[in-house]
Amino acid sequence: MTHSLRLGVAGLGTVGASVVRMIARRADALSAATGREIRVTAVSSRDRTRDRGLDLSGIQWFDDPVALAGSGEVDCVVELIGGSAGPAKATVEAALASGKHVVTANKALLAHHGAALAKAAEAAGVALAFEASVAGGIPVVKAIREGLPGNAVSRVYGILNGTCNYILSRMEREGLTFEACLKDAQALGYAEADPTFDVEGFDTAHKLAILTSLAFGTVVDAEGVSVEGISRVQPLDLRMADELGYRIKLLGVAQATAAGIEQRVHPTMVPKSSAIAQVMGVTNAVTVDADAVGELTLIGPGAGGEATASAVVADVTDVAAGLVRPAFGRPSATLRPSERVEMQRHEGGYYIRLTVHDRPGVAAGVATRMAEREISIESILQRRSENAAVNDPRGRSGQPVPLVLITYAATEGNIRAALDAIAADGLLAESPQLIRIERE
Amino acid sequence: MTHSLRLGVAGLGTVGASVVRMIARRADALSAATGREIRVTAVSSRDRTRDRGLDLSGIQWFDDPVALAGSGEVDCVVELIGGSAGPAKATVEAALASGKHVVTANKALLAHHGAALAKAAEAAGVALAFEASVAGGIPVVKAIREGLPGNAVSRVYGILNGTCNYILSRMEREGLTFEACLKDAQALGYAEADPTFDVEGFDTAHKLAILTSLAFGTVVDAEGVSVEGISRVQPLDLRMADELGYRIKLLGVAQATAAGIEQRVHPTMVPKSSAIAQVMGVTNAVTVDADAVGELTLIGPGAGGEATASAVVADVTDVAAGLVRPAFGRPSATLRPSERVEMQRHEGGYYIRLTVHDRPGVAAGVATRMAEREISIESILQRRSENAAVNDPRGRSGQPVPLVLITYAATEGNIRAALDAIAADGLLAESPQLIRIERE
Repeated sequence: MTHSLRLGVAGLGTVGASVVRMIARRADALSAATGREIRVTAVSSRDRTRDRGLDLSGIQWFDDPVALAGSGEVDCVVELIGGSAGPAKATVEAALASGKHVVTANKALLAHHGAALAKAAEAAGVALAFEASVAGGIPVVKAIREGLPGNAVSRVYGILNGTCNYILSRMEREGLTFEACLKDAQALGYAEADPTFDVEGFDTAHKLAILTSLAFGTVVDAEGVSVEGISRVQPLDLRMADELGYRIKLLGVAQATAAGIEQRVHPTMVPKSSAIAQVMGVTNAVTVDADAVGELTLIGPGAGGEATASAVVADVTDVAAGLVRPAFGRPSATLRPSERVEMQRHEGGYYIRLTVHDRPGVAAGVATRMAEREISIESILQRRSENAAVNDPRGRSGQPVPLVLITYAATEGNIRAALDAIAADGLLAESPQLIRIERE
Repeated sequence: MTHSLRLGVAGLGTVGASVVRMIARRADALSAATGREIRVTAVSSRDRTRDRGLDLSGIQWFDDPVALAGSGEVDCVVELIGGSAGPAKATVEAALASGKHVVTANKALLAHHGAALAKAAEAAGVALAFEASVAGGIPVVKAIREGLPGNAVSRVYGILNGTCNYILSRMEREGLTFEACLKDAQALGYAEADPTFDVEGFDTAHKLAILTSLAFGTVVDAEGVSVEGISRVQPLDLRMADELGYRIKLLGVAQATAAGIEQRVHPTMVPKSSAIAQVMGVTNAVTVDADAVGELTLIGPGAGGEATASAVVADVTDVAAGLVRPAFGRPSATLRPSERVEMQRHEGGYYIRLTVHDRPGVAAGVATRMAEREISIESILQRRSENAAVNDPRGRSGQPVPLVLITYAATEGNIRAALDAIAADGLLAESPQLIRIERE
């Protein structure tokens, strides 16, 4: 048997504690799979006194994770500190610089510095592995990087944030507002006290940027992601989606277009019959469209200590087995530069919910402005206001009422221009709601 | 760059031709991913004259695949001949004996000789890779073997045969009989002229046996799978399933029990809300229940030349990258012997459709026999016969009518005993239909 693989675990929060326990619990299976013993020899955390329910006897303690990364008693650093800068970045850089393998769950770090870190890992001849950084326990990094090399990928999209999917699932099922569901998610520990990072789509954007690089062989480019969160989605939109045969999910979508790779995060209408529409609650899912396999979907837990630790331990096992492959599937020098595509150029179907004054000629006025921009309407849903008959024998109240349009494929630039014209015509009582449609 | 990896492709049917084309089409991406050129240097097939639309110039032709396997110009043999014996087995054995890596799509060979071949591969220090043998283009072998090493798996189940899922999907949607849908599947090329191997569950059993070994670390044991096909499923069963909130799928299920690993293939009721219930047509899906990740589901194409070639090329890429790990996730000497569990000991919920004479006391008689075997009934569906009122003012016709029971968890032995007693009581007009329920 080869010498054992010595792990230094930097960060002992929920995931770190799960990793330490899992490595011990699965010791026999892991050594059978790799032909080597895997053991934790060093840990680092801010607070040494906290009781984590872990047996840390015989394990060296470091107050400073960078010192752990430089230790001669560690072969592989498991970075679970988090954050795109500060100690996490310093720890990973120190580990790579001293020729140690790195396994990390840090999506922010990878999204912002992935290409540079991959280059450093290659120079050192070590692994930089990050299965846990995207979609928690789902082995989606491995599936794309190692499971589809014979394929050209045309699109990858997914539900990558459990908090948002939990909120949207409850809004849909119970007809509640975003605010009410967010409060519950916070009470249950699914959402942070400051939920901005999750609900405004930035967490999804980080994960998407990593998937994009893996799927398309481009330099990871988090800044190139167009981001819109779920805080403006209203219960009425979910009801309308239901009537029209859709569900609303916060998707991250990366798509090959003639102009480059489009990367976008936004609330999205998906057909109710699609696999991804079935994914409710905190569960994550990723679908890959590729030329040889067609459509491949992976569904599983996107977060949680044990599920995330499962992905970390999978990476550690690959390292122990001697698997050192380029982090993003090909040498960093051969990654293509990201070609950003402006959202204005996005082409797709749209759900547009206008709040119009309930009076004659409004629908015609809207339709005319759409036609001027060559936008074809697939369906229109108009609801009379509830007190219509009381006010007007012809059923028109003059009150604000929703007018919902589903368009065929159109460019975002044309859609925005049409909406601006409709607003300038004075037809709108509120600013319009616009949700993109993603078809299978 | 390391020297190139030279492939010998044995078998040039649909999959083989796709592999040859894919290796050429993706040459740049594959060499970027692995640091090596991958090229096909030899092929073998029965018929040299057939036009496959392939450019085979510069590629050596072998009439005998065993000779190809012994060639000094080949580093890795891709076996796409098929069948558990004969030339396929001889080719794989010859390749391993001469120290060549083997990539195969041959589920029958793996299911019957997997452990011995894995041992031979280990002895030679080469890879034996078989992603394409289970669920076509879905990277499920990789996901289980390399994506979940930190997990203890409790159950793995899936839709592993596209032919059966196509037939059941059409029976459900269109209310057609098994026979009518089979005929259409044959006309469309989804089913063979002799469909027994697919529709009676044997193909699913082979794939399940491979998944079982990977998931539980046991010696692959195809003979230990209890097998029942879909030919006895009737349109009425699909209608009843729909009313009760289920769909019927042919599942392969491997489950850890106190007595050992249960391996079974049978038509199965799955809750309509489950991810696997959404899988329609020729698509495949696999769900793994494991202690750390909870539930993980992979959905994708189960067959087809390009999708299967995608899995073959993924294995070839691993070989080129130097990945040589034990075929079933751990050295063959450490695989545990399979402990077969008799189907009589299976415990679960059951759908039982009886055809009873429509007369007083029948339901009571059935319920009494069930209670004697301590079987609890979750729900009963009784349909009066359509001409009931005509024959009998009390609504009973004496005609055969369906009586459907859904049970809580019970052992198969008790269920069978109760049904035997009900039959002996003379209550049944036809032999009973029994479909097992699989809950999430």
